[in-house]
Amino acid sequence: MSAMNTSLFTAERTTDGVIERDFTIGEVPGVLWSPADASPGTPLVLMGHGGGLHKRSTGLVARARDAVLRDGHAVAAIDAPGHGDRPRSAEDQRWVDEMLAERAAGRSMAATIAAYNASLTERAVPEWRATIDALQQLPEIGRSAPVGYSGMTLASAIGIPLVVAESRITAAIFGGVFVYDEITLAARSVTIPVEFLLPLDDPEITRESGLALFEEFASEDKTLHAFPGSHFTVPMERVDTRFFARHLAHPAASVEPVG
Amino acid sequence: MSAMNTSLFTAERTTDGVIERDFTIGEVPGVLWSPADASPGTPLVLMGHGGGLHKRSTGLVARARDAVLRDGHAVAAIDAPGHGDRPRSAEDQRWVDEMLAERAAGRSMAATIAAYNASLTERAVPEWRATIDALQQLPEIGRSAPVGYSGMTLASAIGIPLVVAESRITAAIFGGVFVYDEITLAARSVTIPVEFLLPLDDPEITRESGLALFEEFASEDKTLHAFPGSHFTVPMERVDTRFFARHLAHPAASVEPVG
Repeated sequence: MSAMNTSLFTAERTTDGVIERDFTIGEVPGVLWSPADASPGTPLVLMGHGGGLHKRSTGLVARARDAVLRDGHAVAAIDAPGHGDRPRSAEDQRWVDEMLAERAAGRSMAATIAAYNASLTERAVPEWRATIDALQQLPEIGRSAPVGYSGMTLASAIGIPLVVAESRITAAIFGGVFVYDEITLAARSVTIPVEFLLPLDDPEITRESGLALFEEFASEDKTLHAFPGSHFTVPMERVDTRFFARHLAHPAASVEPVG
Repeated sequence: MSAMNTSLFTAERTTDGVIERDFTIGEVPGVLWSPADASPGTPLVLMGHGGGLHKRSTGLVARARDAVLRDGHAVAAIDAPGHGDRPRSAEDQRWVDEMLAERAAGRSMAATIAAYNASLTERAVPEWRATIDALQQLPEIGRSAPVGYSGMTLASAIGIPLVVAESRITAAIFGGVFVYDEITLAARSVTIPVEFLLPLDDPEITRESGLALFEEFASEDKTLHAFPGSHFTVPMERVDTRFFARHLAHPAASVEPVG
């Protein structure tokens, strides 16, 4: 490991066969989960967290550990701007206060969510791209590693424009996202394989908007997985189609041994 | 194997590790695919074929072989009344002629499909139940084997009422089905885990009718998997969630060795 990579990490521990390392890239704190025996080209899955949550949210950590232990993938999560360990700006706080007030009053949060999420996205997209840059320096990942992106709600609001801007991401899982114009426009430029998760009974995000967004993805390879309940109750064990296992092949796996 | 079971089968061959046996129960011809090393309690998946097709349709055989080789399941298929190797009655032929004439003229086939499928279902449900009776006599299946049902279009029209009538079936995959009143009513009595496949762009079956039918299933554990295209282009490799592997556990697998 080079000096650059060593300096990336601020803490390391191994739990039940998964190496977990904290990193900071610029001002952005993150976590990398990886297999103990990772070899160059280990597929990298970027996992975004939902609005109000953070890089170590319970569901995210469980999915990350599954991806490491079951698929042998590496998984990175970072805190979105103003989330987790990052300070929240006064402007972001005003948006959050406004959303909470709207929800409490039973008023539509649509305009506030659209403005807040669009602002977060503008900041988060370059942060994810810098994260890929940095993690590709690691010998066990490298520039040949395939990269996927997974995340619902806010993480889809960020992720859909991200995969349009970032050609290194070659497969993505989205869903449960509040749809506004920028999201729809970005979806029309998405051509990578997409799996889309649709909560059918979300109190704040209609199924019709999810179906309409799914239509907009330009991807030839896309499937929609819908389930009763809200975006808080995604039954990952029921909708798991081994999407990343199919789409993010370790480059070494397709190389025939020579001699 | 008992004399009764031997007499069930009229032909047997093994292809690439899968035993394939022809059987006849009453007037109904069928095929059983099973693993060479099947032990008592081997889960049994009943696979129905689509309208106009038969028990050895290409897609069905491929899915059956996958289930045997990947999951270690046994798979049975039978010809629906008037399909495959079975003679078609004059009344059934009138329905088929009527549907083809309606399709050619661009008229709605709804009333004809509803009448024809309802009639086929009335005949096919007892045939599937007799098939379970007979196959449970086989030592490698037996009465402890879990039973699943899988089939789209006509096979869902038959299968949805079948799983209501037949409590031995404990998990089912349906989809792409033309919906009429009997189907909707039956769905309301389905409580077993259901996976529902929805072609989003079927020229003859609207997505709205599929979504509405999915709503009607009373199952707590249900997921919907939708994909672009028609019911002729189900991308099984993309929607596969290992549904039967999760729901039809071999009873021996959950038994702890004693001593």
